[in-house]
Amino acid sequence: MATLKIYADRNSQPSRAVILFCKLNGIEFEEVKIELFKREHRSPEYAEITPMRQVPAIAHGEFKLFESHAILIYLACAFPTVAGHWYPTDLFKRAKIHSVLDWHHTNLRRGSVGYLLNAKLAPVFGLPLNPQAAAEGEKVLIASLSKIESFWLHEDGKFLLGNDQPSIADLSLLSEVMQLELLDENERSRILGPFKKVHRWIEDVKNATQPHFDDVHAVLFKTIATAKKQQVDTARS
Amino acid sequence: MATLKIYADRNSQPSRAVILFCKLNGIEFEEVKIELFKREHRSPEYAEITPMRQVPAIAHGEFKLFESHAILIYLACAFPTVAGHWYPTDLFKRAKIHSVLDWHHTNLRRGSVGYLLNAKLAPVFGLPLNPQAAAEGEKVLIASLSKIESFWLHEDGKFLLGNDQPSIADLSLLSEVMQLELLDENERSRILGPFKKVHRWIEDVKNATQPHFDDVHAVLFKTIATAKKQQVDTARS
Repeated sequence: MATLKIYADRNSQPSRAVILFCKLNGIEFEEVKIELFKREHRSPEYAEITPMRQVPAIAHGEFKLFESHAILIYLACAFPTVAGHWYPTDLFKRAKIHSVLDWHHTNLRRGSVGYLLNAKLAPVFGLPLNPQAAAEGEKVLIASLSKIESFWLHEDGKFLLGNDQPSIADLSLLSEVMQLELLDENERSRILGPFKKVHRWIEDVKNATQPHFDDVHAVLFKTIATAKKQQVDTARS
Repeated sequence: MATLKIYADRNSQPSRAVILFCKLNGIEFEEVKIELFKREHRSPEYAEITPMRQVPAIAHGEFKLFESHAILIYLACAFPTVAGHWYPTDLFKRAKIHSVLDWHHTNLRRGSVGYLLNAKLAPVFGLPLNPQAAAEGEKVLIASLSKIESFWLHEDGKFLLGNDQPSIADLSLLSEVMQLELLDENERSRILGPFKKVHRWIEDVKNATQPHFDDVHAVLFKTIATAKKQQVDTARS
């Protein structure tokens, strides 16, 4: 069996989705850390893995692939041990999963990244904060959460599309929503507060993916704790 | 056989990709025009088809679907007459097609829409032009074209990913690039000029998809001709 290498930074939401998927399905892999904060994704060596210089990427033997949704689908098909609910073979169910994943790119992800980067994270990457872009990102983020609440989550079935068991779409979208933990408590409440079904879905996906969920998110929680400590120290000094 | 309805505006690039795919594969469909310039996508009736109120969407019997990539994949799988090169069953080839389609969302499409909307089309939708957003869009657009030139097109094989025959990715990305015809000749040359392989690829996909290509793009060319006439009339008055 060819070795599976996953090039990832667990601070990145699509990296976490791919690693979590592998752990949930007993897929063995070697994790190659590409630390975004150290700009390791810009190295010439990493450009050999993916010319897009983003995480995650995989190398499965000689086969290289990037884009997390494409990777999740590939892994679900390449490993026969993966349970059917992650990426059903049924034509209609599969089409709906593609639809929510495509929607994610230009809605939830665009809003979440646009808001977080421009309201919070830009200085980490040597960029200025951009209040106008942050406001635009927040608008898209809230509209996206509202669509998850009113459309992608149904009354019957705990998971996206009204499914009884989680799919790769739940992993991808939840990893994105978890990134909002980087916000202050008040800010996060303001944004996520109104969406009761989204809250319940977050808990349901967490519960369905433990103990791997906590394990895969530990790096993000450590980053958050460090950032909060720095804020307190700065406020004191 | 269930009726296939395609809700589309041929001025929209993903609408054209879906219609072109059906015509190329002899898939019968009823086209339901949703005119964006008349804001027909905002009507309550259309919200029943897709709550996202974007084009294209399909209804195949009772089954409704939106997001053009998801639609292309669904149609390629639902109609057994579709030739294998459009969406190969091979695990690795299919994964690469997913990768280029996912990449498209946050690169070529983001750049193209960001530039065209903010530099040119905003007034049509009652919005102001936004030079800063246009500049950002142009940067993403040019970086994306550069990646098509240097990575997605290979020396061997005329089409994306070095394929000898076109795939759904060629239809989706070419429909996007055709939208740049809305620019003035000089502007279009400035943006597309440096990319020789992209130029050859445009011609190769056009040739491989005629006479349907011209047929499906006729509405866009008419829109462009009308806009140019209006510009000349405005300059004269």
